[in-house]
Amino acid sequence: MAWTGDTQAIGVTGIWGPSQPFEKLSITRYDPGEYDICFHVKFCGVCHSDIHTAKNDLGGAVFPVIPGHELAGVVAKVGSKVKKFQVGDHIGVGCFVDSCLDCAECSAGDEQYCSKGMTLTYNSAPTHGRCGPPNPDVRTYGGYTNKMVIHERFAIKLPNTYPLEKAGPLMCAAITLWDPLRHWKVGPGSRVGIAGIGGLGHMGVKLARALGAEVTAITSSPGKVESAKAMGADHVVVSSDPESVKAATKSLDLILNTISAGHDVMNYVPLLDTNGSIVQLGLVTQPHTVNQLPLIFGRKSIAGSVIAGIKSTQLCIDFCAKMNIEPEVVIKPVSEIDAIYNILDTKNDGAMRYVLDMSTI
Amino acid sequence: MAWTGDTQAIGVTGIWGPSQPFEKLSITRYDPGEYDICFHVKFCGVCHSDIHTAKNDLGGAVFPVIPGHELAGVVAKVGSKVKKFQVGDHIGVGCFVDSCLDCAECSAGDEQYCSKGMTLTYNSAPTHGRCGPPNPDVRTYGGYTNKMVIHERFAIKLPNTYPLEKAGPLMCAAITLWDPLRHWKVGPGSRVGIAGIGGLGHMGVKLARALGAEVTAITSSPGKVESAKAMGADHVVVSSDPESVKAATKSLDLILNTISAGHDVMNYVPLLDTNGSIVQLGLVTQPHTVNQLPLIFGRKSIAGSVIAGIKSTQLCIDFCAKMNIEPEVVIKPVSEIDAIYNILDTKNDGAMRYVLDMSTI
Repeated sequence: MAWTGDTQAIGVTGIWGPSQPFEKLSITRYDPGEYDICFHVKFCGVCHSDIHTAKNDLGGAVFPVIPGHELAGVVAKVGSKVKKFQVGDHIGVGCFVDSCLDCAECSAGDEQYCSKGMTLTYNSAPTHGRCGPPNPDVRTYGGYTNKMVIHERFAIKLPNTYPLEKAGPLMCAAITLWDPLRHWKVGPGSRVGIAGIGGLGHMGVKLARALGAEVTAITSSPGKVESAKAMGADHVVVSSDPESVKAATKSLDLILNTISAGHDVMNYVPLLDTNGSIVQLGLVTQPHTVNQLPLIFGRKSIAGSVIAGIKSTQLCIDFCAKMNIEPEVVIKPVSEIDAIYNILDTKNDGAMRYVLDMSTI
Repeated sequence: MAWTGDTQAIGVTGIWGPSQPFEKLSITRYDPGEYDICFHVKFCGVCHSDIHTAKNDLGGAVFPVIPGHELAGVVAKVGSKVKKFQVGDHIGVGCFVDSCLDCAECSAGDEQYCSKGMTLTYNSAPTHGRCGPPNPDVRTYGGYTNKMVIHERFAIKLPNTYPLEKAGPLMCAAITLWDPLRHWKVGPGSRVGIAGIGGLGHMGVKLARALGAEVTAITSSPGKVESAKAMGADHVVVSSDPESVKAATKSLDLILNTISAGHDVMNYVPLLDTNGSIVQLGLVTQPHTVNQLPLIFGRKSIAGSVIAGIKSTQLCIDFCAKMNIEPEVVIKPVSEIDAIYNILDTKNDGAMRYVLDMSTI
């Protein structure tokens, strides 16, 4: 199965910044096999993790880096043994494109915690054989591109009725909230806080509400109070207002914390009732100073969670389609990528997701 | 019902140390009511928390302080409405003597997390009316004494077959481990680590083993390896040996961390498998530096837990009696209390509990 032609992408050839803006690149995708799907990338969301990698905040970036792990597209070709997809189907790809499929975590459907390491959609060396031949010198290329190849095991079916331009952010922003909501068994009667009402958090408000929980949006921005309520929040706590925080003491069973800038996690622990958990979701690289006494004297916990496995992701997408849950998106041409990065890198995340229109590459 | 006579105790009249050693005091217990039990304290365990309070490490100590919350005694008199106890019964009292009995936590059997605050066995103002009249200027007096009064709701039945001199440490050391073992659903198939093999930890090894778990003792002292195995540990990790720690990577579902000296909790997180939790039990006052990435990329959590409710405590004691689980104790006369404090305050906790023989007061 050939998938040649002109594969275009935008990427950075060094640490992103004024001296290394994005530029257009021609790349080669690996040769698709009998279980692979070739698809046209129509839209790709811009995640804060894309910026972390382009800036090499966590180290390990091998340039050129082509970010993007919120892909939504249309199937162009399928391998001879592909069963899940047909040409013309809508398809999504999220944060990883392969895992060992052999460890306890993969067997449990938690490929994101694969004990041998999931292969990320970008800047990851193929090791498990389902995204090109294993090669420590190669790196995967993400979704800021017009063409992609994916093994069907790691592809998500997008209902053709779901707006394609809004589907990308489901693949990372939505599932990052969905998976802990399900893992911590949120449903009717649960009191859930969503801290940080940005690209991730706004989906948390919508999903938690749709699952039947009582939802408290927690934001440092008084200006987001109304939009949080409009998205379904029952209550809003303005974290920059001590009175607002105090009034919500012990009012929550679970906080999903999407804040990806440096913050003091201990400011949120008093909002938890006895037995409550705060789940860190944003990739904050600065360590927290944690006093264990508030945890001990309330049987509280500070946990972490990352994205979701394939099965959980599919359930999330199907739930969103069924419940008419859509992310707030702003569609942008690829020419604006550096401006988008500047905004996300310097300001509070807006209560929406920037999505690149890949037809503009 | 009178309970007068000569009530003796040992306490400190200022912050414990060379200039304020323990001294003998005569005290007055509150007048017992119809639901109260008067008992002779026969033995009282010495807990590290006693030292924290006597040294006023957490603030809030009102002197004189008479510590002790691991009481084992024999019932001398009972109020007219007492149903649980008769004269001559063995009786235990743990870390608290009253709570509101009206909040969600008390209703759930978690009086230790009472939303209005449990009344501690010592150095606590009576507020709820079941340990003397509410009075902000009064403080409860603990178990380093020969006589005690307790409301039957907060007293524990000790089977008369259980060695009384070993029962005191069940009331704090054992239940502190028991309650999280039950809360985190430990049983056959669970892989449990017990960090710190001292007064608390050694009970954790015995209890976790008796519940059917695979038990790993984690100690900084190579000299405790054999005793930990003798108590039932299947494996021992020597935390001061990097190779020993490395070999146990991802081998545990739950770690109960009893270490009450300053330590780096992040050293233990790599021992947790995906979805694992480390539960902080020791009262460490110095904050931890917590990097959230290892939590996020393993859905791990850092939690806390304190003692147990009355129902859970009774279950623990009954379980210990049934399974012949006994703490390692060293019985001491009250004259050695300062020497015991010196040892506990300056050295690693031994894999046993010091217990005061209150007949020596």
